[in-house]
Amino acid sequence: MDPKTRGDASSRGTSETAPKKSRRGFLKQGAALVSGAASAGIAQNASAQNLAGQPWERAYGAGFTGYGQPSRFEQPVMRHLIRPYGDLAPGSGVALSPIEALEGIITPSGLHNDRSHSGTPDIDPKEHQLLLHGLVQRPLKFSMEALWSYPMTSRIHFLECSGNSNRNLAPQPAQVPAGVLHGNIACSEWTGVPLRVLLEEAGLLPRAKWILAEGADSAHMSRSIPVEKALDDALIALYQNGERLRPQQGYPVRLLLPGWEGNMNVKWLRRIKATEEPMYTKDETSKYTDLQPDGRALQFTFEMGVKSVITKPSSTMKLPRTGFYEISGIAWSGAGRIRRVEVSADGGATWTEAALTGQERPKALVRFRLPWEWTGKEAVLQSRATDEKGQVQPARKAWLAQYSPGNTYHNNSIASWSVGADGSVKNVYV
Amino acid sequence: MDPKTRGDASSRGTSETAPKKSRRGFLKQGAALVSGAASAGIAQNASAQNLAGQPWERAYGAGFTGYGQPSRFEQPVMRHLIRPYGDLAPGSGVALSPIEALEGIITPSGLHNDRSHSGTPDIDPKEHQLLLHGLVQRPLKFSMEALWSYPMTSRIHFLECSGNSNRNLAPQPAQVPAGVLHGNIACSEWTGVPLRVLLEEAGLLPRAKWILAEGADSAHMSRSIPVEKALDDALIALYQNGERLRPQQGYPVRLLLPGWEGNMNVKWLRRIKATEEPMYTKDETSKYTDLQPDGRALQFTFEMGVKSVITKPSSTMKLPRTGFYEISGIAWSGAGRIRRVEVSADGGATWTEAALTGQERPKALVRFRLPWEWTGKEAVLQSRATDEKGQVQPARKAWLAQYSPGNTYHNNSIASWSVGADGSVKNVYV
Repeated sequence: MDPKTRGDASSRGTSETAPKKSRRGFLKQGAALVSGAASAGIAQNASAQNLAGQPWERAYGAGFTGYGQPSRFEQPVMRHLIRPYGDLAPGSGVALSPIEALEGIITPSGLHNDRSHSGTPDIDPKEHQLLLHGLVQRPLKFSMEALWSYPMTSRIHFLECSGNSNRNLAPQPAQVPAGVLHGNIACSEWTGVPLRVLLEEAGLLPRAKWILAEGADSAHMSRSIPVEKALDDALIALYQNGERLRPQQGYPVRLLLPGWEGNMNVKWLRRIKATEEPMYTKDETSKYTDLQPDGRALQFTFEMGVKSVITKPSSTMKLPRTGFYEISGIAWSGAGRIRRVEVSADGGATWTEAALTGQERPKALVRFRLPWEWTGKEAVLQSRATDEKGQVQPARKAWLAQYSPGNTYHNNSIASWSVGADGSVKNVYV
Repeated sequence: MDPKTRGDASSRGTSETAPKKSRRGFLKQGAALVSGAASAGIAQNASAQNLAGQPWERAYGAGFTGYGQPSRFEQPVMRHLIRPYGDLAPGSGVALSPIEALEGIITPSGLHNDRSHSGTPDIDPKEHQLLLHGLVQRPLKFSMEALWSYPMTSRIHFLECSGNSNRNLAPQPAQVPAGVLHGNIACSEWTGVPLRVLLEEAGLLPRAKWILAEGADSAHMSRSIPVEKALDDALIALYQNGERLRPQQGYPVRLLLPGWEGNMNVKWLRRIKATEEPMYTKDETSKYTDLQPDGRALQFTFEMGVKSVITKPSSTMKLPRTGFYEISGIAWSGAGRIRRVEVSADGGATWTEAALTGQERPKALVRFRLPWEWTGKEAVLQSRATDEKGQVQPARKAWLAQYSPGNTYHNNSIASWSVGADGSVKNVYV
């Protein structure tokens, strides 16, 4: 055994020969921005191998638990809490997903983004019921137990708050982790009963054109939804990533409207009412409208735009050395599948297509990856997503021109990270 | 508003007309075992709708948390702990996934099955390193931080202990939940560095035909693995369902060998050594071999067989009424994709093909579903999976004939639940 330090001259020499196949494998995932070794210089000197092992190799480990938790060493990986009213209203605001620390496309349920207007209700599922009424032949009420027997379906979908990325509308770019800027997004496997099945069971009347969905939180969060969506892919969701919904995601039952504004996916769902017209609830008039350049508020902009963000590396991180990295990030579109994600390392002058994981699923997060060599020069990293409808994620300036400066919703513009000569990664407006 | 009770005559009458579309949608997912209303009789009388709402609708809810947890009302949904040595060795045994309470195909990480030989080590990721040595040009050692820069991939795969379902080899069928019998299985999205990339970086020598994988637990759990698998789809897994691995699943790093015996997916991975021959470790000689009818032990039976189990309904449950249900369950194969799952309600006399979710993914759980009407007569429910290689899940008797009565591994035979005239669901041997 003659371990080599990966950063020394000999390993750099051998990296030109032996790792060819690995480099080819790497490049097969997507064209590289630059050529060179796949992953030079970061493996450590193996000569210090301590065969006696670490302390935990010499002690009997912890016993089994009924419900597992993350390692104590991962405690810093928490949601970012934004509570505009502080302790006066500790459940009003948002808990943002730490996307900078996550990988893949499933968001662990404990780190799912959580936008709440009046905190998380503590609902007893034995007492909670779902009422289906209004323009139907037979108003119905379902206990949670009753829903158990209905046909279910499981699908992976993202949920994004329409206010996601509004922090990047401030005059100066905030130097905070990517999750604080763009973490009002998550992606889970949802299982539930198609809303269509329940509406048909109730006998939806032809003149019903909208449904009202109302939550059982004390804000009675309510939104009006076109009946076409309700009969398309809307789910009465009961399970999230295999287990029952978490309280912060709507336990015991929520509405899921794949690809549409997060707040419309009403949590703690207590009532669906079929109506002829939208109900113009407080939640769709006092907010969740898009201020136009002429000062008018555009209402009912349901679908979330095509979007992407690089999570690795991202703001507040620091690259420890020059050499090879993998750029990794997430992309999504409320319109359907992601067709392409391009990455730029020069502030948008040139673009290279990234490899995608999960692009077969509509309205779900896609993971994109691209090898990148940091030579030590300043760089500006960007990603640009295109969806299957041909919609392209807009540049920041183009997006801003569409709205009044006071608009805070639907910011799907390209996000930019600068890499300084010292390796520090910063949020910048490009 | 004139809410109807779903179980009365009028609703049964209307169910023959109005819900036709919903029934068609239901049936589209898979041919029905019987004809009839899609989901009769279980929605409750809506006349008692209390518009004043429940207590939680009139109180400000709980504040945000950094890391979310399940509802207190879901506390009974826990892993089933089997600790053969009790408090003498509280981390030796198994924590079984409560598959009877889960839906979809992702297992929440807190409820992932957990087989451990000497408990869960409390590993500091800053101190833990992965050594790659033996028949390689350049022995290498990787800190966890170093692995961060390597190219990663994300894939959804199941993990099944080769001892799963051995409880069903007892002389009498145990009347316990499905998870106690068949819950040594879980499925997650795993993200990590392909082992191939690291082996090529180290310069694997042509005469290396096996690798040894060794854990950092105090049992130093070790297995020999053919190099072909290591260069195929093996992953050095760092993330599970988006976040870093849970300690009970190998934090900070584990080996993932998609489709192969769970114990070979060495947790808390500290060392990979390339060798010419298998190492015949204690873990592949004292156990994890299959006792043949002639008394010999067959070694290195890596791939998990094609298998399925109905989770809804399943043993210890009780159907509350006659009428329509959805039969739901999971299927998987270590050989690749699931092609077909058939369901029988008459103990195997007739079979109907179920609808599948997730069948596009190899070596991952698939969810199957089929509508079923329980008329109140006794029934025996079974599922039978077929994979893309044409392998068919064997009947119990056929499986038993392959092995010595003392064998306890690789039981992938068809599981059977009887439904009694009182609706009670029992584990039976058919």
